[in-house]
Amino acid sequence: KIDGDRLWNSILETAAFGGTPDGGVRRLTLSGEDRAVRDWFRHKAETLGCRVSVDAVGNMFAVRPGSDAEALPIAIGSHLDTQPTGGKFDGILGVLAGLEILQTLQDAGYQTRRPLMVVNWTNEEGARFSPAMLGSGVYAGVFDRTYAESRVDAEGITFADAIEAIDYRGETPIGEPRFAAMFELHIEQGPVLEREAFDIGAVTGVQAMRWYDLTVIGRESHAGSTPMDMRQDALADAANLILTTQDIARRHGGMATTGQIGITSPSRNVIPGKVTMSLDLRHENDDTLQAMEQDVRAAMQRQCGERAVLTGIWDSPAVHFDAGCLAAIRDGAAAAGASHRDIVSGAGHDSVYISRVASTAMIFVPCKDGLSHNPAESATREQCTLGAQTLLNAVLAYG
Amino acid sequence: KIDGDRLWNSILETAAFGGTPDGGVRRLTLSGEDRAVRDWFRHKAETLGCRVSVDAVGNMFAVRPGSDAEALPIAIGSHLDTQPTGGKFDGILGVLAGLEILQTLQDAGYQTRRPLMVVNWTNEEGARFSPAMLGSGVYAGVFDRTYAESRVDAEGITFADAIEAIDYRGETPIGEPRFAAMFELHIEQGPVLEREAFDIGAVTGVQAMRWYDLTVIGRESHAGSTPMDMRQDALADAANLILTTQDIARRHGGMATTGQIGITSPSRNVIPGKVTMSLDLRHENDDTLQAMEQDVRAAMQRQCGERAVLTGIWDSPAVHFDAGCLAAIRDGAAAAGASHRDIVSGAGHDSVYISRVASTAMIFVPCKDGLSHNPAESATREQCTLGAQTLLNAVLAYG
Ligand SMILES: NC(=O)NCCC(=O)O
Ligand SMILES: NC(=O)NCCC(=O)O
Repeated sequence: KIDGDRLWNSILETAAFGGTPDGGVRRLTLSGEDRAVRDWFRHKAETLGCRVSVDAVGNMFAVRPGSDAEALPIAIGSHLDTQPTGGKFDGILGVLAGLEILQTLQDAGYQTRRPLMVVNWTNEEGARFSPAMLGSGVYAGVFDRTYAESRVDAEGITFADAIEAIDYRGETPIGEPRFAAMFELHIEQGPVLEREAFDIGAVTGVQAMRWYDLTVIGRESHAGSTPMDMRQDALADAANLILTTQDIARRHGGMATTGQIGITSPSRNVIPGKVTMSLDLRHENDDTLQAMEQDVRAAMQRQCGERAVLTGIWDSPAVHFDAGCLAAIRDGAAAAGASHRDIVSGAGHDSVYISRVASTAMIFVPCKDGLSHNPAESATREQCTLGAQTLLNAVLAYG
Repeated sequence: KIDGDRLWNSILETAAFGGTPDGGVRRLTLSGEDRAVRDWFRHKAETLGCRVSVDAVGNMFAVRPGSDAEALPIAIGSHLDTQPTGGKFDGILGVLAGLEILQTLQDAGYQTRRPLMVVNWTNEEGARFSPAMLGSGVYAGVFDRTYAESRVDAEGITFADAIEAIDYRGETPIGEPRFAAMFELHIEQGPVLEREAFDIGAVTGVQAMRWYDLTVIGRESHAGSTPMDMRQDALADAANLILTTQDIARRHGGMATTGQIGITSPSRNVIPGKVTMSLDLRHENDDTLQAMEQDVRAAMQRQCGERAVLTGIWDSPAVHFDAGCLAAIRDGAAAAGASHRDIVSGAGHDSVYISRVASTAMIFVPCKDGLSHNPAESATREQCTLGAQTLLNAVLAYG
């Protein structure tokens, strides 16, 4: 049985790595803060009798031997990196619950047949280097290692240089160690479980998502002497497109978000001549997402003609998780005395790519006001404990 | 008589200081490029027999003695700094025409009664340090020297540090040397003269302008799991306000421009929690500008309540130039054989503040497509020559 206090304390302990005054965590992937929490993870796993290996993109695998030396491990995986305005829970809960499970088994002197493995995937957030779920994507063969290494952050630093700088480029070949199945525990990051008062979500899949860069070209000119009707204002066009893409998303029952925007050579008294912004489109249904993209392209053409360009940089289709893993999760929740419902994830997770190479499913716990990627992100000790207990039950049940 | 080729060559010569591949000039105030053109200006003026002095905010005064040692000089002033996306003409034409006039008088062996003075005012553009017209504003007593020195650029460098770095903090007391009148030659930066085929604009005044910082607070949350109707998206609000302020400007016959925008802690998959942007409002009439501001405040309140804050950082009321100087300009244009009309400036100029301490007026020449603050900014050799000739005639006529 999970020790909820111990789990809670480890959440508070790791929140110090990149902790911010407002109670949040800013621990961008491959930063100094990330290195610190990685060192902590390695040390902790080793004291629990694990062998820790690291692959070339920094994914960390902590393996606790099972009684059957031939059997593939069962993985418990998530991520320790955060958003710039991240909270204490997000993927962290999933990794720390894995360690808590190993501790619980050790205290009970219990050896599983299959080895157990706790995984910390690199750059799940996609905040410093796009796209998201990069480490698990490389492991699963969705992305090349060289593609990952060539990704560049806002300061112009490559993934390759960043991983070198924190000394976390490991020797383990990509795609190893292999495992039979992965379970991922995560906060919901949405409002459904809290609103409907469920303890646990059995995550049946993840909606489709696409990332784009959107560029609008206007014409720089003087803010005081250029009549309003002679302007080609790239920012006014961008503002229109931000609102239009959100209207399109609403109409289709999907989502549209612009989280980054910049003017090239900005100046207070210059009409913007070039604006670059991000666009994140999501829908549960691949076809509808495609229709949303087409509507966005049509709106851009209508509003800006050739002056606006949309470039897709990431496309993650809808995912459906493994039925066997889901059954183990539902049973595990019931055994933990937790109320549960099925749910579809709006956020991407490492499980999305891992599900291509191993049986995979996820467990959600509620979070306050459905808030995440925010310093105020919050879940209670009891919610976290029930999630970890469900995870332990599911892992043992899956066997 | 002005040597148009010589003037043109000096425009091309100085365009090398901060010249960009697209034919523009990027010479932000107090940058290395600005230092280079300042050194060039000092050297050139000295070879024309001037004494060059520099005050504590870097304003440069090149004085050519007159026959009456007691008489106050007549100034010809403008600025050599540019926007990040600046062109070759802007204030530059006004300073170089001043030097060309001194050269013409020297070649003709002509001594004026009053001393003549060519002035290069610091940070007219307001691009690196806001507000605009900072150097002439300090000279005229509108701004404190310490206020100017404390202004900070986007990199966090203060005006004081920047002027120290290029070694242009001079010894001349603020407000000296005094002068009787100032004439400023500038490209129109608008479409009127070109459209109506006039050679010269006699600038009767400058419209009112105000600069603001506008901040919108939203709530950071996840781009994939936060339903559209549960969002507090600071960027969506900002986009709405950009469009609304421009509608308000159109309705009042004024102008509204947002030239800078930034998200605090931007990330592709995070709904923006805080957006900061600039707002530039202008109108020929002070009262109407005030009404525009009130409409903007009301719209902000309606759309965002307390989540949006407007902070005024600069207020430059409408200006009416000196009748005597204007008469000299109209006569000077006629004597140069140039067609001319009266015109009001949409852009701010050093003459705005100088008109508070000396008789002042301005001369506009047309520019291609009314374009400025753009690398493609352009005026012909003939247009520049007619402008400089009108300037010379006006200076001599004003006597
Ligand atoms: N869980 C999570 O925040 N993942 C980041 C990828 C996404 O944007 O959905
Ligand atoms: N002339 C000019 O571009 N001045 C800068 C001040 C303004 O924004 O009008």
